[in-house]
Parts: sequence; structure tokens; C-alpha cells
Amino acid sequence: MPDPAILDRLRAAVEKNFEAETAFLSELVRFPSLRGREAPLQDWFARQMAGRGYSVDRYTLADVPLESHEKAAPMVDVDPAGSVQVVATKRAKEAGGRSLILQGHIDVVPEGPTSMWTHPPYGGVVRDGWLYGRGANDMKAGVAAMVFAMDALKEAGLTPKGDIHVQTVTEEESTGNGALSTLLRGYRADACLIPEPTSGTITRAHTGTIWFRLRVRGVPVHVAVADSGTNAILSAMHLIQALQKFTVELNEKAKADPSFGGVKNPIKFNPGIIRGGDWASSTPSWCEVDCRIGLTPSMEVADVQKGIERAVEAAREGDTFLANNPPEITWHGFVADGYVLEEGSEAERVLAAAHGQVFGADMEERLSTAVNDTRYYGRYYATPALCYGPGGEGNHGFDERTNLELLKKTTLSMAAFIADWCGVE
Amino acid sequence: MPDPAILDRLRAAVEKNFEAETAFLSELVRFPSLRGREAPLQDWFARQMAGRGYSVDRYTLADVPLESHEKAAPMVDVDPAGSVQVVATKRAKEAGGRSLILQGHIDVVPEGPTSMWTHPPYGGVVRDGWLYGRGANDMKAGVAAMVFAMDALKEAGLTPKGDIHVQTVTEEESTGNGALSTLLRGYRADACLIPEPTSGTITRAHTGTIWFRLRVRGVPVHVAVADSGTNAILSAMHLIQALQKFTVELNEKAKADPSFGGVKNPIKFNPGIIRGGDWASSTPSWCEVDCRIGLTPSMEVADVQKGIERAVEAAREGDTFLANNPPEITWHGFVADGYVLEEGSEAERVLAAAHGQVFGADMEERLSTAVNDTRYYGRYYATPALCYGPGGEGNHGFDERTNLELLKKTTLSMAAFIADWCGVE
Repeated sequence: MPDPAILDRLRAAVEKNFEAETAFLSELVRFPSLRGREAPLQDWFARQMAGRGYSVDRYTLADVPLESHEKAAPMVDVDPAGSVQVVATKRAKEAGGRSLILQGHIDVVPEGPTSMWTHPPYGGVVRDGWLYGRGANDMKAGVAAMVFAMDALKEAGLTPKGDIHVQTVTEEESTGNGALSTLLRGYRADACLIPEPTSGTITRAHTGTIWFRLRVRGVPVHVAVADSGTNAILSAMHLIQALQKFTVELNEKAKADPSFGGVKNPIKFNPGIIRGGDWASSTPSWCEVDCRIGLTPSMEVADVQKGIERAVEAAREGDTFLANNPPEITWHGFVADGYVLEEGSEAERVLAAAHGQVFGADMEERLSTAVNDTRYYGRYYATPALCYGPGGEGNHGFDERTNLELLKKTTLSMAAFIADWCGVE
Repeated sequence: MPDPAILDRLRAAVEKNFEAETAFLSELVRFPSLRGREAPLQDWFARQMAGRGYSVDRYTLADVPLESHEKAAPMVDVDPAGSVQVVATKRAKEAGGRSLILQGHIDVVPEGPTSMWTHPPYGGVVRDGWLYGRGANDMKAGVAAMVFAMDALKEAGLTPKGDIHVQTVTEEESTGNGALSTLLRGYRADACLIPEPTSGTITRAHTGTIWFRLRVRGVPVHVAVADSGTNAILSAMHLIQALQKFTVELNEKAKADPSFGGVKNPIKFNPGIIRGGDWASSTPSWCEVDCRIGLTPSMEVADVQKGIERAVEAAREGDTFLANNPPEITWHGFVADGYVLEEGSEAERVLAAAHGQVFGADMEERLSTAVNDTRYYGRYYATPALCYGPGGEGNHGFDERTNLELLKKTTLSMAAFIADWCGVE
């Protein structure tokens, strides 16, 4: 637990810098860092960190041997060479304290129809204690928090005794390859903190995620021959219904999962993008659906993939079009395991103490039915990986916003955690 | 019935010009005259007709008062000023014989994935007695036939005694406004022949067509709240199913139609284009479906539109997303009546005689469950409108092709019809 005097100094520092932190977050939000378009933000971020005296490594996904790792995910529709990663390192003068990775993703998901937003999605507008915009909460607020937690230590005249890597990655929303790349690039530490917007809770476990693209294509039977199932759009609907049934089965199996057994229907299936056909008066010959499905940490990705294939194959029988035209399945993104943060780690104990001091309450835990990047550090590289950060609402929806009071508090609890984990001089 | 000697001269002329006719059709097919992109073909066609000595009127849909006519259809996604029409007129030296409109549409529907075609869709390739390509059959073959039927008369030294307008129009596949524009522009005649690919049959009646765009948009309920109906794509599927049920009702009513009562399910519903969502892992907030539905000639367009609105409204009740987010319906194209060619017209009698002479068999009749342009001339301007022409297969599908033997025969029967209807000197 940090020394109360140190905490007071950190609190004063966070307070002093908070206007700058809010401006920094607004600036982050103003970059429309959609998939494949993250480079301008990363270049700006790299300059910011270099200006703060970090040693900065800027590289792209084409610079690491992704394909060498079994947990790398397929990247479709995007060029790895355009996907920029930044690792900003502050090395301890002497190796002594524990090292730490602070990691955040700066890729955001599409904002949808702009007219549905109260404030412009890339405006970074502040109103009544909230900062609005796509990515404001998920998770540029966390990125601002980790940078300003470090700034607070410096402002307070505290120098960490362990090496610290401040990393901003891409691909969290589609594959996870950005996080994996930092490990393949060689960055390691004694613990990892990813400040996703958890509203000051610790993430005990998250489900896995699989992405797949269904492609229905073929020569349709003439409408004169049959009144249903002769049209690629209708056949895609038929496949979606088959996958809804498969999801019910998966949720039945999920009742046996040690982490998610008590959660009602933790497996979510989402047909997220659909496109098909060329003309209102022509029977559509093609339809594509981009889908996402979850899995519990105790399920294997390969087993769920086989289940998807079986469900699609079985659905062909009941459909005139599909019977003659086998649909294709493309694994076009996430093939992500779930992850459970084992209880009792020293890293979690130190974070809980810092949280308790700042919030005056216990750090509660949550289960997440969406994936995050902790799995790479925690599951494959034996690094305790804590998912804990600020909070808000509207992730992936309209009027996404982050709460500035929570941002300030978690910035402080993170600063206190860093001080206590690494030690300071 | 044409004089057998005249028919022989016409037959020889059609035969002599047939290589040129085939080349002319290939050239027509090589223009990718998709909606909004018809102008290059029309300009070429106008020059061709001017070169043959016709008086050519080239104008666009922005040049006629479309909105003044209650049967004009809404045009969405396309600029009327870019939609070029051509009327090529050959006037009789003295008004004496009956006048005639020959009309064909040169707009084509999208070709779909090119990889599904055996021959390039805009190649105009000839193989084993067939000419391949998008629009080759529907209905550039008919356009070639009407031009070369007229050429055959000239080649045979026969001059029609009535005025003849050879018209190529757009928008047949989407609104019908091209055909309507020729009437608003002032062109009239004692009969109209539209050589759609009917394989030498006369079209006794065609169904009407309505286009509409369903737009589902709103703030989705979070996936945590409900497991179905919280997603714009799933809600669009729900609407499609409601419209399938509405189609069953319409087909029940269609049993009372004097023309289509004996046809099984003459009303076809087609969801032809779908698009929705932005990200596999975000609940889609929007989905659009472009649809087409038919109606019998005895049904009113306005009644079917009301039925569609009622079906969509009723479907909202069973769907969490739609209950909170009313879908929009946009009438974005066809609002087309059906049409019945009344039996017993002199024009049909003359055509049947010409057909019988050329084919050595009676002209059979067909019922069409798709719309064509005859309704404007026949239903609103009291002009007997005959839909009769060459034939092939693959309209709106892959490997569309027209049969060259049928093209030659119908070119001759059309030439014989023109000679007999207008009279020649």
C-alpha cells in the first residue's frame, strides 16, 4: 500500500495535470483511428512520448513474425504494414524494482450514422463532466490515464525503480495481433495493466471471440420454381437462424464453465455486417454476413469453429439454394481464447490496495462477455494481466462517453499502483 | 397478311443484313448501359439512326414534365438529367397509312459477380447460334430487331405509308419513366410494338411491380438485455418474413384476377439488395433492404402499398428493436400497374398473321409475372401495345443469351408486321 504522504503528492499531481489530461484525451478522440487508419494517431502519440523523455519504438505488424505464433489471428481487408504500434519505455536507472507493462488499444470501431450522435463522434466534446466521442471510453480514456499516471509520478518527483513500457496498440477490436506483436517484439514485464473502461473493477475473466464471414453465392433457382429459399439473401437469413440455434446449444454448455456458469447466456452471437444482391428486381446471387460469436474460457476455439461449420452444413439441407450452392466460411479476424485472471496474484493485491486507498471501497470484480488483450500476457506469456480502468457508457454505440471524475480517480489509483508495484525513489 | 412476294423480298433482306444485325447487337451489348450510365449507348444509337436518315430527337428525363403525370414513378439514387432517351422518326411522305411506335429499353440490370459468367458480361460474344451478355436478350436483341426490321423494308425497296417512331428508352428496369417520357414528349401512334424477349409469343397480360426500400435504424438495445430482435439486421429479417406472409395473402387474392387467376402464385416478392451494420462486433444500428413485389392487373398500386405499410406496422409488435424504432418505407422506383392487352385489336390481328406466315404456326400468348413498358401506351394512352419479340434465357441472371435464329425470325415477322400495318409503297 503506498505511503499516504506519497499518495497525497500523487493526488495533487493528478489534480494539477487534469486539465491537460482532459485535453490530451480530447486530442486522442479527434483522431478517427478506425481500423487501418491508426497511423496518424500513433505518430502523434510517439512524438508526445518522445517529448516526455521516453525511448520510443514505433513499428508495424509487418515488422514482426506474426505468422510464427499459433495465436495470431487472420487479417483480412487490412494491410499489416499500415498497422502502427508504439512502445514507449522508461527504464529504471538500476534494475531493482518490478517491471510493468501499461497497455492500451487506440483502434476504434465505426461510429455508425453520424446523425444518431448528439455530439460529433470525433469532436472530443466535454459536457457536464463527461467527454464524448467514439473511443472516448473504449479505450482512449484508459490510454490518457496511463500516460498521466506516469506524468503524475514525475510531477510528484517520484522515479519508478522498475522498467515501464507504455504501449499503444491496434487490432484489439478485430484480431488482438497488436498486443501479440509487443510480445513477439520482445517486450516483457513482471505484470501488465490494461486500463479498459471497467469503472474501477477488476476483470476476473473474459469470454473469447471468433469472427467469421459467411459467403452465400451461386446460381439462384428461378423464382418461378419455388417460393422460398431460392435467393441468397433469404438463404443467409436461414444460416443466421441456424447459428442462433447453435448459440443456444453453446449457452447450454457454458453452464459448466467455472467462471461463467452462473451468467445467463454469456455466449453472444452477433451478425454485425450484411451485404448482398445488386438489384431490387433480380434474385440476389450473393450475400455476405460478418459474424461474431463468443466462447467461455473453458471452450476451445477449434471446437467452436467445428461447431459453426457443422451448424452451417446442417442448415444446407433445409434450403433449396444452399443445397446446390455450398456456403463458404472465412475466419477473417478474432480466433480469441477467453482468459481467467487467477486469484491471489501479488499484482492484483497491490492494485486492490491502491484502489481501496483512492476509492475508499473494495475493488469489485466483474466478468466480461467481450474479449480484451489481457489474454496474450496472462494466458500465453505467464504475466499477471490486470484489466482495470476508468468508466463510462456507449462503447460500440452512439453517444459513447467517459466519466471525467472516474478518469481522474483511476488515474490516481493507477499512479499509486505503479509507485507501489515498481517502487519509487 | 403481307403479300407473299413482299415477304420473300423481306426475308432476303433480313438474311442479307443478318451479319450486320448480329454485329449491331454485339455492339449494343458492349455498352455497359446500367442505370445512370446509358448515355454513351444512346449517343451511339442516335448517330446510327441519323446515319440511316431518321430524324432524331435526343433528350433527357429532365426535359419532360414527368411530375405532371400521376403514373410517373419516384427516381431515387439517379439523376433524371443523365437519363438519355432517343426517338428516331421516319415520316411518311403523305399521311395515309397507320402510324407505329417501335420501342425498346436499353437499360440493363447489374451483372453480379463477373466470375459467375462463362463469357464476359459485356463482351457480346457469339457461340453456337447464341449471343451472350447482360442485356443481350433483355432487350437489346429486340432493339436490334426493330432497327433491322426497318432496314429490311428499305433494303427491299419498301417505303412505309405511316409515320414510324423508333424509340430507345431507359428506366424500364426501375421506374418506366423512360417510356412515359416519350408520351409526355408528344409521340403518339396508332399502335405500339415493344419487342421484349417473348420468344415469338404475344404478351396477353403482365403483372405490376412496386419497389420499396425498408430502412431499419435506431439505438439498439444492449445485447445483454435480450437475445433476439435487438439488432437491425435481425429486425430486417423479421420484416422480410412479415412481407413473405403478406405475399401469401396477395396470392390468395390473386385467384380472383381475370388474367392471372389460373396462375399459381403470380405475385413474387423479392428482397433484392441488403446492406447493414458496420462492424462484426458491434450490434448493427441500421439495415436497409431494397424490395420488389408484384400485383395483378386488377389490384390497385395504392392498395398494395397500404398493405405493405400495414404488414410492416404489424411486424413491429413482435420485435424489441422495431417496437422502439419505427422502420421507414421509401417508394424508390416502380409504382407500376399491371396491364392486359384486350383481345381482338386490329394491331394484334395483323401481327398474328405476320407471325403465322413467318413461323408457320399460330402466335401463342403468354402471361408475364414481370412488368414491361406496354402499360403506358396501352393503359393510359389508348394505344394497342403489343409485347412480342425474340427469345433466349438468363434475363437478370448469369450467362444471359439470345437465340440468333429466333432473332432472325422475329426480325422478319416484325418487318412483315410493319409492312402490313402501315402499308408500303
